[in-house]
This record gives sequence, structure tokens and C-alpha cells, in this order.
Amino acid sequence: MRVIESSVELLHSTPNPEQVIERAGRVCWKSEDRITEDSHTAFINMIKSKNHASVLEHASAGFIITTDRGISHEIVRHRLCSYSQASTRYCNYGKDKFGGEISVIKPTELLEGSPEYLDWVYACQIAEDSYLEMLRKGVKPQTARAVLPTCLATEIAWTANFREWLHICDLRGSAAAHPDIRVVINQVKPILVSLAPTVFDSLVSK
Amino acid sequence: MRVIESSVELLHSTPNPEQVIERAGRVCWKSEDRITEDSHTAFINMIKSKNHASVLEHASAGFIITTDRGISHEIVRHRLCSYSQASTRYCNYGKDKFGGEISVIKPTELLEGSPEYLDWVYACQIAEDSYLEMLRKGVKPQTARAVLPTCLATEIAWTANFREWLHICDLRGSAAAHPDIRVVINQVKPILVSLAPTVFDSLVSK
Amino acid sequence: MRVIESSVELLHSTPNPEQVIERAGRVCWKSEDRITEDSHTAFINMIKSKNHASVLEHASAGFIITTDRGISHEIVRHRLCSYSQASTRYCNYGKDKFGGEISVIKPTELLEGSPEYLDWVYACQIAEDSYLEMLRKGVKPQTARAVLPTCLATEIAWTANFREWLHICDLRGSAAAHPDIRVVINQVKPILVSLAPTVFDSLVSK
Amino acid sequence: MRVIESSVELLHSTPNPEQVIERAGRVCWKSEDRITEDSHTAFINMIKSKNHASVLEHASAGFIITTDRGISHEIVRHRLCSYSQASTRYCNYGKDKFGGEISVIKPTELLEGSPEYLDWVYACQIAEDSYLEMLRKGVKPQTARAVLPTCLATEIAWTANFREWLHICDLRGSAAAHPDIRVVINQVKPILVSLAPTVFDSLVSK
Repeated sequence: MRVIESSVELLHSTPNPEQVIERAGRVCWKSEDRITEDSHTAFINMIKSKNHASVLEHASAGFIITTDRGISHEIVRHRLCSYSQASTRYCNYGKDKFGGEISVIKPTELLEGSPEYLDWVYACQIAEDSYLEMLRKGVKPQTARAVLPTCLATEIAWTANFREWLHICDLRGSAAAHPDIRVVINQVKPILVSLAPTVFDSLVSK
Repeated sequence: MRVIESSVELLHSTPNPEQVIERAGRVCWKSEDRITEDSHTAFINMIKSKNHASVLEHASAGFIITTDRGISHEIVRHRLCSYSQASTRYCNYGKDKFGGEISVIKPTELLEGSPEYLDWVYACQIAEDSYLEMLRKGVKPQTARAVLPTCLATEIAWTANFREWLHICDLRGSAAAHPDIRVVINQVKPILVSLAPTVFDSLVSK
Repeated sequence: MRVIESSVELLHSTPNPEQVIERAGRVCWKSEDRITEDSHTAFINMIKSKNHASVLEHASAGFIITTDRGISHEIVRHRLCSYSQASTRYCNYGKDKFGGEISVIKPTELLEGSPEYLDWVYACQIAEDSYLEMLRKGVKPQTARAVLPTCLATEIAWTANFREWLHICDLRGSAAAHPDIRVVINQVKPILVSLAPTVFDSLVSK
Repeated sequence: MRVIESSVELLHSTPNPEQVIERAGRVCWKSEDRITEDSHTAFINMIKSKNHASVLEHASAGFIITTDRGISHEIVRHRLCSYSQASTRYCNYGKDKFGGEISVIKPTELLEGSPEYLDWVYACQIAEDSYLEMLRKGVKPQTARAVLPTCLATEIAWTANFREWLHICDLRGSAAAHPDIRVVINQVKPILVSLAPTVFDSLVSK
């Protein structure tokens, strides 16, 4: 059993996203003649102030996220996104490709070395042992997965448009969100801000 | 720890769904004058043969499903549906409301009493013990859930329109689907067939 | 040429929608035991105050709307809905079924009998004449439609869930919306309020 | 009145889309180690043969389309896309920006100079005259638009992911589609093919 960290890697994004948004948005008013080198900043601020948010949908970004299966279950509830996730049916963690072991994400709220941390480690180890034992007895991964814990690490490719990323970051980065999804979103935010500073300026931590 | 079965209960459905679909569909051609007591059958068959499937979206149905968290993670990947699911953040399975224990769904492919079945039971019991112990030590349910197994029972309210139910039943009722989601879909199908026999006749097992 | 009025007719709705919403929503907390005859009112108010709006998606309603093609073009921009609309390809307004004439919706902002009203009537009549003349010359309706005016009457079956209807009524019933879509929404609102008074109480005109 | 042609201009697209799709898709099997310089071709063909089409959603493209308002009404019925369209409320075609005139798209099925073509030109001219006259009398564009014809030219920024573009091109490029939407789609297709030849090879005309 390996304990790994949540992580986020940019997979793709629309080139020059703020220029794309401005160009698309100016179609509504036929005001393309007003485009200058830096007019996109004022245009996007105007769009946001009018809550004309659909224009922000023309740009998108995707990430490869490593998190646990509890958090990925929350993530995929966002329906205006695209997902490709590591399958617990097609992945056999007993194989060499996985080092013959499972990977888990330590919950943020567990202090390493604390008594409850040790409870967690123990439960994960029994889960791994049972999973591998079931595989040895000929059970398929899709059935042996039954014993895998919620903190099992998973990878998921997650694509959304900029309007949706704003919504997701607001919701899943807030104090009311699960601490382990906030760890993910806190890594997504600065990447989005660097891609489109005007679109995402509300995400800059102050 | 309690072992329970997957189950399906109809929560709501559009009254007279085939008449609703016919009435909505005839708007396209302005042929409402051709509606008779039983014209909806021929109309819906015509719609389906032309793959004019959007008309089927005007009727919908919702179910309360009991399944495990592995299957619910597959279910919520269907994005053209509405969901309300038991929260592992808000539910504390140590409380009296839950009998102070977790409920799990036995994987279809495990034979009760087999050696691998005993591996599964053991792993679930350790998971439950660890979860309850972490709660006793003051860990919140949202963090203690880390050790809960994939086969943890969950309830989910699942609403979709008839076009989407046709698609879901085709995909998740097929031989390539996970055996435990097929158990759910096989309970959904006859209810849909009874609600709208013409729409869902392809789901009738032959 | 016939001048007709915008109109709205309820096509279908979820029976006992507030009870359905309560039942679905209580799945999240497993608090179904707290359901009483009138608990849905407090439950739905709580849901709304927490902005836990997805629960409202389990109930839906559909209408047959008569409006003009300019407004229907705005309507179908709402993407989380289902539509079946009278086709200008399949409908031939020269046929007896349509009385051999087109129907148009008078724009709300035009005063009947005013000089600009007469401009409008004249333009519609020339459009109708040209359309019928093109049909006589063998042009298909799908091409002759080119001359039909934006105020051409159209019918559209429009289904959405309650969360979406709240959003639509807010946006399209506001002072910033087109006056002719407000005429439609003002007819939709009281029907929704009668179907689910707690869900839609913000729509009651004060 | 100006008669213009339908046109299509690429606004944005995901860089290296086939590599992005491969990388996202291999997350499902954790087979990223099998990526080579040209492995994306075989991977995407495999994905398509298994109808595992959701992986194609990670790449997207957007176009600025010029077409008529009849066709744009069909276009926006595709709900899994993003749109920004020239507004007949905010655009005043009497202004200098538009040359003080309307632009129209000649229907494909009308032969220039034919008797029915002259009917069409006449109707468009009366529509334009009436529109401009109503504006002169103080009517707002949002109401004067009532007389504008279905063939009025419009611009629309249209973004969709690659899975959706495949579906759109199949549906709207087929023999059953309106001839004027086929003119648009026939311009979209070669651009998509050049962006992602493996994804879109079924669109290559043979």
C-alpha cells in the first residue's frame, strides 16, 4: 500500500482564451471593430458585470486529477463537464503496472501518526490484503473492488468550460466543501488564473 | 454490519406519458387533429422508427435506488439526469438512525459462504470497526468515511426523461455492464415497460 | 393572414411535486422518517435557503406555448429543457389545415391601429403573398419560408424541471427581457405557482 | 439590402487534440506508458470502435458561422454546445455599422434570376423598407424585427466538443437535413478533418 498526495496537472486549454471570448461575445453586438490588443480585459469585465456568463463557455481547460474515490464521486456530480476516469473494473491493482499494491490518499483532516491515523492505515491494509486475496482466488477486479476503501486513489481527466470552472471553484473551494476536494480545487485555481486572469480574478486568494 | 439487497422503488412518473408524448410530438407537424384514443401507439412507433427521439423527452420517471457506492459512482456519470444521494458527509452510520452499523451490498458474483465471500465479510467488518473507532476518537464522518468499502450501501433518487432511460437501460443492462448495475436496471425495466409499453417495448426480455 | 395571441397551456406535470421533492431530498440525510402530511413546505424552504437547488429537479412541467419565431429562438437557447416545435419545413401554411394562410403574433409594443402597426400589417401581408406565390411556383415550404417574418406564430412544447423553470422565469420575466417573452412567462408563472406554491412562491407578483 | 453567402471561420480549437484525447482516455486503463509519437491514431480508432465516445469530449472547436435566422434556429436546438449570437434586440440594422441595410442569405434551392427568386427579392425589400420605416417612427429594433424575414443573415459563435461535432455533422450534413444547413456543415467538416483526421475520418467525402 502506497500513500500518495492529491495532485493536479493541466492537460489542455484554449489558446488565447480571453481573446477568443471577446471575439465570440462581440458577435452579439457586432462590435468586432472595437477589438484592440488589450480590449479583452474591459470586455470580459463588462460581460461578467452583466452576468452574461454564457460567453465564457467558448474557452475551456482540462486537468488530470489525482484524488480519492470519495472525492471523485463528488466531482462527477458536476454534469456540464467531460470525464475519463481510472476504472476499478479494468484496473487490476494486483498487476505489476500498479506495483502489485493499491494507492490511497490520506484524508487532510487526519494527522499523520495520530491514533486515528493508525486506525486508518490498518483498515487500508486489511482492505488491500482482502482485495489481493480475492484476486488470487480468481475473483475479478470488478467484484474484488467491493472491499476497496473510499480513500482509494484514482485518476480522472476533467474538462470543463470557463463558466463551469468558475462555478465549480466557487462551490468546491468554499468553506462548506469537503476538505479533500478543497485541496484539489486549491491546485486548480492558480492554473486557471494564469490561463485567464480577467475571467478568474475572483479566484485569487486575498 | 448488515447485508442488504439492491432495490428499486418508483418515486414519480408523468401521468399518461404516451398521450403526452403524442401531443407534444404532433406540434411539429400540426397534426393534433389526428389524435384518437389509441393513436399514440402508432405515433410513438413512427417517432422511434425515424429516430426522432427528442419527443420522448417530454415524459420522465424517477426512482429511489438502493445499490452500492461503486455502482452509484457509475450511475451519476449519466449527466442528463437528476440525482439526490445519501451523503457520506451528512450521514453518521454510528447513529441510532442507522442501527449504529453500516449496510453493505453483496456483490452478485460472490457466492454466499464461499472462501472469497468470507474474505469479503471479514474486510467489511474491519472497515466497519475502523470507521466506528475513528468516530469514537472524534473524527468526523466525512473523514472516517475514508475506510468505508466500495460495497457500502447507498440510496439515490434518480430522475430521467424517457429518452434517457432508454439509453441507460441499453447501456447498463447489456452483457458488457457491471453485474451489480444490471441487477438494478433489471428492476427498473419492467416498471418503465408498465408505465409506457410502446416507448419501452425494446426492453421487454424475450 | 390571421393575427393571434400568445398563449400557454399546461401539457403535463409531476403529480404531488412537493412531496416528490421532499422524498427525494430526504435521501441525502436519510430523514424520511420526518415526513408528515405538511412537512414538505418547511423542507423545501430549507432546501431553497441553502441553495441546494438540485433537489428541485425531480419535479417537472411542460407547456404548449404559442408565440412568435423571434421569441421561440430565444426560448430554445435554454439548453436544460426539452422541445418539440412546429416545423417550417414540414408545415405548409398554404394547406387547408392552416386555412391557407399564415398566423402572426402582434408585437406587444405596437399599438393596434397606429401608423407603425399599419407598416407591420403591410409587411406581413406582402410576406404571406410572396410565400404563397413561391409555393404556387413549386418552391418547397423549407425554401419559401425564407420570406416568412419573425412574428410568424409558432407552437412549441416546452418541458423543464422545476429548478430550471425558476431560473427561466427569473431571467425571462425580468424587466430586461423582451416584452413578448414576458407575455409568455407571465402566463406560465401562475400555473407553476398553482402546481407547487412553495417552490415557486418567489414568482407570485406582489 | 445585401445578399451575402453562408460562411464559416474557425475561432478556436484544442491544440494537439488527438494527443489530448489519447492521454485522457488512457487514464481509464492506466496505460499512459504505451503512448508513443503516433499511438494516438490506433488508440482513437479503438475508442471509436468500442463506442467509448465520451473520451472525444476532451477536445473542442468553435466557429464563427454566418447563416440565416431559420438555420440558426435549427443550430441552437443542439443543446450540448455554447453559443453567442448577433442579437436582433441589440443590433439596429438602420445604423451605419450595418450600412443602414439588412443582409440576407439566398436560399440554396432558389435559382438566381428565376421568377421565384424575384418573388424572394421583392419580399425581402418590402421587409427591409418596413423595418427601416418603423425605426424612423421610433419603434425599437426589438419590435421592428417582427417584419424581418427568416433569411435574415446572422452571425453565431458556435463551440462544441469533438464528440458533439461528430453527431452534428452526421445529422445536419445528411441528405435529410435542410439544404442551407448542409452548406454550413460542408464548410465545417474539412476544417474538423484537418484538426483531427482520425477523429473525423468518417466525415471525409468519398
